[in-house]
Amino acid sequence: MTISVAYLGPVGTNAETAAIQYINWLKNQTGEDSLLCPYPTISQAISAAISEVDFAVIPVENSIEGSVTVTLDTMWRLDSLRIQYALVLPIQHALITKAKTLGDIKTVYSHPQALSQCQEWLEKYTPSVQIIPSNSTSEALKYLEGDDSAAAIASPRAAQLYNLPILAHPINDYPDNYTRFWVLSQKEHDQDRRDRTHTSLAFSVPANVPGALVKPLEIFASRGINLSRIESRPTKRSLGDYVFFIDIEADATQPEVEVALKELENHTETLKILGSYRVLPL
Amino acid sequence: MTISVAYLGPVGTNAETAAIQYINWLKNQTGEDSLLCPYPTISQAISAAISEVDFAVIPVENSIEGSVTVTLDTMWRLDSLRIQYALVLPIQHALITKAKTLGDIKTVYSHPQALSQCQEWLEKYTPSVQIIPSNSTSEALKYLEGDDSAAAIASPRAAQLYNLPILAHPINDYPDNYTRFWVLSQKEHDQDRRDRTHTSLAFSVPANVPGALVKPLEIFASRGINLSRIESRPTKRSLGDYVFFIDIEADATQPEVEVALKELENHTETLKILGSYRVLPL
Repeated sequence: MTISVAYLGPVGTNAETAAIQYINWLKNQTGEDSLLCPYPTISQAISAAISEVDFAVIPVENSIEGSVTVTLDTMWRLDSLRIQYALVLPIQHALITKAKTLGDIKTVYSHPQALSQCQEWLEKYTPSVQIIPSNSTSEALKYLEGDDSAAAIASPRAAQLYNLPILAHPINDYPDNYTRFWVLSQKEHDQDRRDRTHTSLAFSVPANVPGALVKPLEIFASRGINLSRIESRPTKRSLGDYVFFIDIEADATQPEVEVALKELENHTETLKILGSYRVLPL
Repeated sequence: MTISVAYLGPVGTNAETAAIQYINWLKNQTGEDSLLCPYPTISQAISAAISEVDFAVIPVENSIEGSVTVTLDTMWRLDSLRIQYALVLPIQHALITKAKTLGDIKTVYSHPQALSQCQEWLEKYTPSVQIIPSNSTSEALKYLEGDDSAAAIASPRAAQLYNLPILAHPINDYPDNYTRFWVLSQKEHDQDRRDRTHTSLAFSVPANVPGALVKPLEIFASRGINLSRIESRPTKRSLGDYVFFIDIEADATQPEVEVALKELENHTETLKILGSYRVLPL
């Protein structure tokens, strides 16, 4: 049986690299072959895992730019997907261009996340260029066709795939640049519960929201369950009304975690368990 | 004396509307005239308030898209600016184009925040158009020149200013769309402390960050000081290492708040008080 895996395309994005790492790991574990399916947006890639494909490999958080908000908002909206695995990918940005020198570059194209991750480098080495956002790092490469004064920021792998020259690399402002991805699917996939080290959940609280956040945090703290992340997102109902996303370092089926989650239900308006999972060693 | 006010330009952005509301309020209060100074990026507008202008009016948070992360990251990096006031602006998006019907539109340009705030409308009414991000809503309007199949999403006011026709309005997916702005400056401006209803602060905690978040929240909760907002941002040091931004509903000079902030110092690595301020009634 061939497994189908959705990701934010086109070919050459960091999301594709993450998806490839996942299918290689899967092949190693189960011998199963996989088919990669690119989608034009992250929300379409997530929705595909409900009806069209077996898995979606989706970016959640970058160490420089923070949460991928569309991922959190879509997970809050949908009910049928669970996080099966997490994986962390190092991110490197290259300046890809047919220009011979930095002085020959007039425009730089890339995804807004990549542009902000290289902002200081660009201000220092190409201070007078025009910076133009694109839908993905790979899409930025198409502007190089027939224009030797255009440059794109994408991964070294994308340069190789599209057979384009790299002028500078790495150009990230911060060397410690990683993106965390989630592997999502509808069906429970990983039967081995031993290594499920993380559980992600999301909840809203009825009124006076952030004041009421103390209790949910105490529920975990008092049981020695560590929180590795907290993020707030607007509910989109009114300004100042939030959904909270929390990662705890435990499997939701551990007895003390089950009790904590039961208690949490009494202090939240809506509570969604997004999944218990392990971090793949890639 | 003329007061200078920085904002994210060019002319016609929502940031400009917020800046105009601020200078009108100022004129009413003090009789002082103001000069509006557009800057190409939010971080440049913020930095201008340190050396070039008297005030910067800067977006902080939108009720649909959440935090303006560049604002939080820049405030964490800088030390010399304080929040003087907050103001909340209702946001309306219009589809601006010379096309006669929706079917004639081939491309839609706008700032990524505006594009995501109209995503469902675009999928429903213009499902086959190409969507292209731009640096600001006003910048998107320049693509309409000489191209009747191009559309831009910007405010109705921008359409008026640039003398361009509106084909559909409002096209926001969520009617309750507001953006909160901060008025920043170096010098203490507002001598009247009575109405300072909010204090914003930012802090990092040494290790095991989110577990250690319970204590700071308890410090305020135990004193009945309400938190109206909490946001986390990456420190950019390593994945999983965060700075927390908190808004409390109190003036930092109230005695019980002073005690709370003193105690907070013992539970944080770095603590920055971003300012105590009132929300302008606009």
